Amino acid sequence: MRSKNRTLSAALLLFSTGIVASAGVNAQQANRPEPLAIQEQGSFAAGGTVTTNPGTFNPLKPLDPAGQTYHGDHAYAFYQVPVNARRLPLVMWHGAGQSAKTWETTPDGREGFQNIFLRRRFATYLVDQPRRGDAGRSMVEATVKPTPDEQLWFNQFRVGLWPNYFDGVQFARDPETLNQYFRAMTPNTGPFDMNVVSDGVSALFGRIGPGILVTHSQSGGPGWLTAIKNPNVKAIVSFEPGSSFVFPEGEVPPPMQDAFDTLQGVSVPMSEFMALTRIPIVIYYGDNIPDQPMTMPAQDSWRARLAMARLWRDTVNRHGGDVTVVHLPEIGIRGNTHFPFSDLNNIQIADQVSKFLTEKKLD
Amino acid sequence: MRSKNRTLSAALLLFSTGIVASAGVNAQQANRPEPLAIQEQGSFAAGGTVTTNPGTFNPLKPLDPAGQTYHGDHAYAFYQVPVNARRLPLVMWHGAGQSAKTWETTPDGREGFQNIFLRRRFATYLVDQPRRGDAGRSMVEATVKPTPDEQLWFNQFRVGLWPNYFDGVQFARDPETLNQYFRAMTPNTGPFDMNVVSDGVSALFGRIGPGILVTHSQSGGPGWLTAIKNPNVKAIVSFEPGSSFVFPEGEVPPPMQDAFDTLQGVSVPMSEFMALTRIPIVIYYGDNIPDQPMTMPAQDSWRARLAMARLWRDTVNRHGGDVTVVHLPEIGIRGNTHFPFSDLNNIQIADQVSKFLTEKKLD
Repeated sequence: MRSKNRTLSAALLLFSTGIVASAGVNAQQANRPEPLAIQEQGSFAAGGTVTTNPGTFNPLKPLDPAGQTYHGDHAYAFYQVPVNARRLPLVMWHGAGQSAKTWETTPDGREGFQNIFLRRRFATYLVDQPRRGDAGRSMVEATVKPTPDEQLWFNQFRVGLWPNYFDGVQFARDPETLNQYFRAMTPNTGPFDMNVVSDGVSALFGRIGPGILVTHSQSGGPGWLTAIKNPNVKAIVSFEPGSSFVFPEGEVPPPMQDAFDTLQGVSVPMSEFMALTRIPIVIYYGDNIPDQPMTMPAQDSWRARLAMARLWRDTVNRHGGDVTVVHLPEIGIRGNTHFPFSDLNNIQIADQVSKFLTEKKLD
Repeated sequence: MRSKNRTLSAALLLFSTGIVASAGVNAQQANRPEPLAIQEQGSFAAGGTVTTNPGTFNPLKPLDPAGQTYHGDHAYAFYQVPVNARRLPLVMWHGAGQSAKTWETTPDGREGFQNIFLRRRFATYLVDQPRRGDAGRSMVEATVKPTPDEQLWFNQFRVGLWPNYFDGVQFARDPETLNQYFRAMTPNTGPFDMNVVSDGVSALFGRIGPGILVTHSQSGGPGWLTAIKNPNVKAIVSFEPGSSFVFPEGEVPPPMQDAFDTLQGVSVPMSEFMALTRIPIVIYYGDNIPDQPMTMPAQDSWRARLAMARLWRDTVNRHGGDVTVVHLPEIGIRGNTHFPFSDLNNIQIADQVSKFLTEKKLD
């Protein structure tokens, strides 16, 4: 028995470190990816507030709100901890109109960052921010309208210029991919509020302890606030933060005009800002972002955002910070959309993230 | 090499069949549950419709809906396939005001049916139905209101009679459990529609092939419709179906009055109804359901629902069906709420489900 157990333990150890990919239990599984060994998985709500309606609850009149409570504005997270997990988990936070789905299966059916980083032995926490998805109980009323807007997103997310795809874009061109891509969207169930969503994700870090925050697009801005609110945020990996860069009072740059909107920095006290100088931060932008102003709103908006990101990097670093902005084409990685982590080359993108985490001793 | 691979394969096989629980890689993991071996996991949208706004899309006016499309009314599912999975997956479908979260971690932090049945080697598909959670894009506008209603749910879900818990109720009494319980709710982002949600889940079965449908409360009714729409539904396990029992034309029983509402059967053509006679179905109800009419709406509503379920069972079985109604206290299982699958005794409840699946040769 002892000998058998030792053999099992050795095999489990290999299994848990991902070395057994080629061992293959049977022929049917020969072409499948190796199994994931998950030590623990589950979900929970974090943060949020509660209101109590005036009056006294009468159980004979259950539809009368008198005296009843309402819990809302929490974040929701589904987490998985692989066997032999690394020290710091990755907390993955979606962008506008998205949910935890962002990090799961890609629109064309490949593995997303959830699985890729589980295979690299990181625990993953996939967030639905307050007022979104499975965290839909909002403290503020909202109306959800079915407004046709998908050509806007096709362009804004830099898949192409509808109905054409960009040359060499890292996005599959079959109709089902586009169908899955559009159906990954899910609406706000209350007004988007930087403070509410960063409070929710900060509460999540309060519960789980130290971790690495991964943001995308709209969560970039509240991601900076989360790191200010909670020292458990030990690093930030930010994909194409869209707006709401946080500057110290008196150092906010002038607004930047682009063909889509006007970009404006957010002012915070220097004491808060300094939190952002104490952690390593990397920001990635993809391809098809113009150098010079152009009339096409979708692309021009990213010209301004990339420029603002560079100003922000310089400001944080001037105060002793460690921010890197990676414009992927500049390091030879081409064709990425607004979703590099689910693009066709997302393994290559994950390798970039892994390299950053190694360099900063975060793995 | 050959010998080493054979040892690994043997160990993996043991691992995959859950025999290695006590092998323990190291001391730290000694008290944890055994790891889950997941062959494959991911998510996708199924079904839904598309509209195209009249006009021509102008990329210079991206906020104008002219010529733009909108995809909505799909279901969303997160799936996990364990190593050495059984033949039929379990498709788990939440009730009113709930989401996929229903089947994940319980409010008091234990494993829900997702993990329990992965450990029993069933693939699991956790659904967010159309117009809910991460499947929030609805074809119909809706307003989401933060209406205080949680004492209604506390009573209606038979945890107790607010603020008191039922004697012996299978529900933890600490405040954080109640906090997690209330925060598991998430609203509709469009009007609830039996046909829309059953179309979505039927499309899911169209994609995944044969499986076992597990419904809860509000999904009970559209669950019957899903089995009518899709022969890939090979069995139904229904927890406390709330209303919308489906009867053949001319055999709908008279409406049932209770202190909360009036229950009414749904009429379908006999040819459709007969689909429900061709698959095994089991229905579970928990405790604290009165035998006789009472004035308390929350409990009395379940008296009527259980009575209607028995009428329905008799109707389906009269036409050659195989429906079993299990009122849990009648088999000595006491204290269950409206959520038996996440109650304190949910392993015991899972054992009942496993027994049913074995008896019907579905595992």
